[in-house]
Amino acid sequence: MNVVELIQRKRDGGRLTADEIRGLIQAYADDHVPRYQMAAMAMAIFFTGLSADELGVWTDAMMRSGEVLDLSDHPLPRADKHSTGGVGDKISIPLAPMVAACGVAIPMMSGRGLGHTGGTLDKLETIPGFTTTLDPPDFVRILGETNLVLAGQSETLVPADRRLYALRDVTATVESVPLISSSIMSKKLAEDLDALVLDVKFGTGAFMQEFEDAQLLARTMLGIGDAHGTKVSAFLTDMSQPLGREVGNANEIRESLEVLAGGGPTDVVDLTYALGTEMLLLAGAARDEEEARDRLATAVANGAAMDVFRRVVAAQGGDTKVLDDPSLLPVAANSHTVTAASDGVVVEANARRIGVAGMRLGAGRATIEDVIDPGVGITLHAKRGDRVRQGDAVAEVAWSDPARLEDCLALLESAWVIGPEATPPPLIRERLRNDHASRQ
Amino acid sequence: MNVVELIQRKRDGGRLTADEIRGLIQAYADDHVPRYQMAAMAMAIFFTGLSADELGVWTDAMMRSGEVLDLSDHPLPRADKHSTGGVGDKISIPLAPMVAACGVAIPMMSGRGLGHTGGTLDKLETIPGFTTTLDPPDFVRILGETNLVLAGQSETLVPADRRLYALRDVTATVESVPLISSSIMSKKLAEDLDALVLDVKFGTGAFMQEFEDAQLLARTMLGIGDAHGTKVSAFLTDMSQPLGREVGNANEIRESLEVLAGGGPTDVVDLTYALGTEMLLLAGAARDEEEARDRLATAVANGAAMDVFRRVVAAQGGDTKVLDDPSLLPVAANSHTVTAASDGVVVEANARRIGVAGMRLGAGRATIEDVIDPGVGITLHAKRGDRVRQGDAVAEVAWSDPARLEDCLALLESAWVIGPEATPPPLIRERLRNDHASRQ
Repeated sequence: MNVVELIQRKRDGGRLTADEIRGLIQAYADDHVPRYQMAAMAMAIFFTGLSADELGVWTDAMMRSGEVLDLSDHPLPRADKHSTGGVGDKISIPLAPMVAACGVAIPMMSGRGLGHTGGTLDKLETIPGFTTTLDPPDFVRILGETNLVLAGQSETLVPADRRLYALRDVTATVESVPLISSSIMSKKLAEDLDALVLDVKFGTGAFMQEFEDAQLLARTMLGIGDAHGTKVSAFLTDMSQPLGREVGNANEIRESLEVLAGGGPTDVVDLTYALGTEMLLLAGAARDEEEARDRLATAVANGAAMDVFRRVVAAQGGDTKVLDDPSLLPVAANSHTVTAASDGVVVEANARRIGVAGMRLGAGRATIEDVIDPGVGITLHAKRGDRVRQGDAVAEVAWSDPARLEDCLALLESAWVIGPEATPPPLIRERLRNDHASRQ
Repeated sequence: MNVVELIQRKRDGGRLTADEIRGLIQAYADDHVPRYQMAAMAMAIFFTGLSADELGVWTDAMMRSGEVLDLSDHPLPRADKHSTGGVGDKISIPLAPMVAACGVAIPMMSGRGLGHTGGTLDKLETIPGFTTTLDPPDFVRILGETNLVLAGQSETLVPADRRLYALRDVTATVESVPLISSSIMSKKLAEDLDALVLDVKFGTGAFMQEFEDAQLLARTMLGIGDAHGTKVSAFLTDMSQPLGREVGNANEIRESLEVLAGGGPTDVVDLTYALGTEMLLLAGAARDEEEARDRLATAVANGAAMDVFRRVVAAQGGDTKVLDDPSLLPVAANSHTVTAASDGVVVEANARRIGVAGMRLGAGRATIEDVIDPGVGITLHAKRGDRVRQGDAVAEVAWSDPARLEDCLALLESAWVIGPEATPPPLIRERLRNDHASRQ
């Protein structure tokens, strides 16, 4: 394999064969292709892209660079959900137990927060004792016992992605739709799923701010699912304001528990049910949307969903007492109120500003080395469309470090725009299914 | 300096400031910027280019990454010629002594052959004892004594280019006009020149096969010269067939000596005089073309040019007896004749095929580690426009290894195309001068 020739061909808009792609990815994973060649290849792909065929093979080769889960012994169909990341996006936490309670196994591997977006692992770890670091045997065992497991990505899965992502991060080659798509999908497909539902966000708080970019990303990932023979749906959802009323790690666990208990803010509930319905349908665990929705509602109403969550928390070493008494979750000692500057209607509660403000407060990480403060957070009292009067509280900040509070407020106070009227856009703008998912 | 941010800006078509470029190049030369970041930057530049301002600074920063010659003590104006490389291109060897004999100092640093193109150093080293490896003090001393020095590039000059070129070679980022231009010009400008004449080739045997690509390369290098305040001219010359009748290292020295003695093939003589005239004009050593041409012809006729060459060969350890008796140069023991396949006129004597055939014979290198066979070569008996009869010799191959001869002939025999008629294009298609050169 002449790597220079492959880079040159890709640079000039040509195609790589399946054998060439598999050879390249494996050699890179094995440290036989130097990083400078992979950096040049990534930048060439940034400019010239990968065809659907190339991308299917690329993703498969990434997936096969390490261990791939074999969950075929599990008696239930397996599904997962992946979000491209947002502010206040705690959907996975109520969703996974709800769907698992309806007879779908969820082998969920999640990530950590970085920049203005939060991470499911950081949120779960605010439950005292809860561990997200599981060996593959424990991962499979817990899934078998509870139909749900909520873990970080195993070191042994998709090592090529870990190497490539670290390289892309330092070579300005992150923002490439095929490379983003294959990174996400290689990790999800390694979970040995029957079905995958993607929550692809657009708006100020999303990685892809423009709807069209998010749509392209979604379609690209659906195509990878088809190449792999996996049912994939994508929901294109608005991330121009935070999801729900809580931003921050323990804050979001509290809100998730509300949803599992039958409450919670409308947007979080709506999105959880929409994604859950699709997971049940794709996994073949419900005949139609109505049945799927009913089953999810029943699992919440009769406590089955909360019970799954209780069992998985226990299995992963967490203190289940917090499920009965969320006040046992960490909470910062101090509180600060942000007020409306004028009378009117909230036109904007800017997701990116609120997300970065939360990061500055200690709820997130500017760099991967930063340490999360689990008890700090922002509780939103006014979202788009809400009527406010000057001096009304629009948010409550739970803080622990005065310097961080100051940094946070410098941004947070300008996150709300108040005007004469507002017409909030729909939360879910489009649902797309790949060929495999449409055929069922 | 945030290198990722610089790569991203360049990737997205933005501009780098002078300080950013200088910081990047120096940090790369000092091994403080990893190769994978420079590879990504080079690929981004391949796609988005560098503005004239950026390129001027980039080249200057490359030049200043190491030692820069200071030849200001030399009493004569200083000029040099650079060719982008071709087959049978031995022009530097007669040209430099001719121009030096007319009162212009030539601090010439040359390269080695690679691929189908030859290198001046390899040719000069067929003169027994001749060394092209000179320390800077010896380089300056010999230039002072003879007005000419013919050396390889010093390790201490433009180290950033050596690092970057090696990286580009393995990351498919060689074929970038700004990167090629800055690589060439940083090395030439480090010679502390008053004037530079470029021979930019196009055609099958050239790096840039299309005239328009060669023209863009030439214009880009002229712009760099303006940014540096140096007079630069470029000749766009045909390299669709070899220059002269000799291809091979000792072969080309023999032909060069013919030109210095007042003979030689028309195309070599014409190009030598054209380039030499321009060097004298730009260096201020002649008032007009006629005077320049007369001075060059006189230097050949009265032996002054040959005398300069004799002195520089002696100063660089070479055996000057070969100047009087070229049969002392190495010559391969065996000879093979290539004949015309039909009657007609030579329509093509394909420079690339003949160049690669010569490389296979041992006259050039496929990789930088290959060892040259100094005595092998190809003597052309028929070039474009020549009338031949079936069975006439079109070339004579001097060979030493039968396997190499076989490899050579497999390509060489198809290098000649014979047809009913041919209209050879002009050797020199265009001459361009930069603003500094035009102003004089």
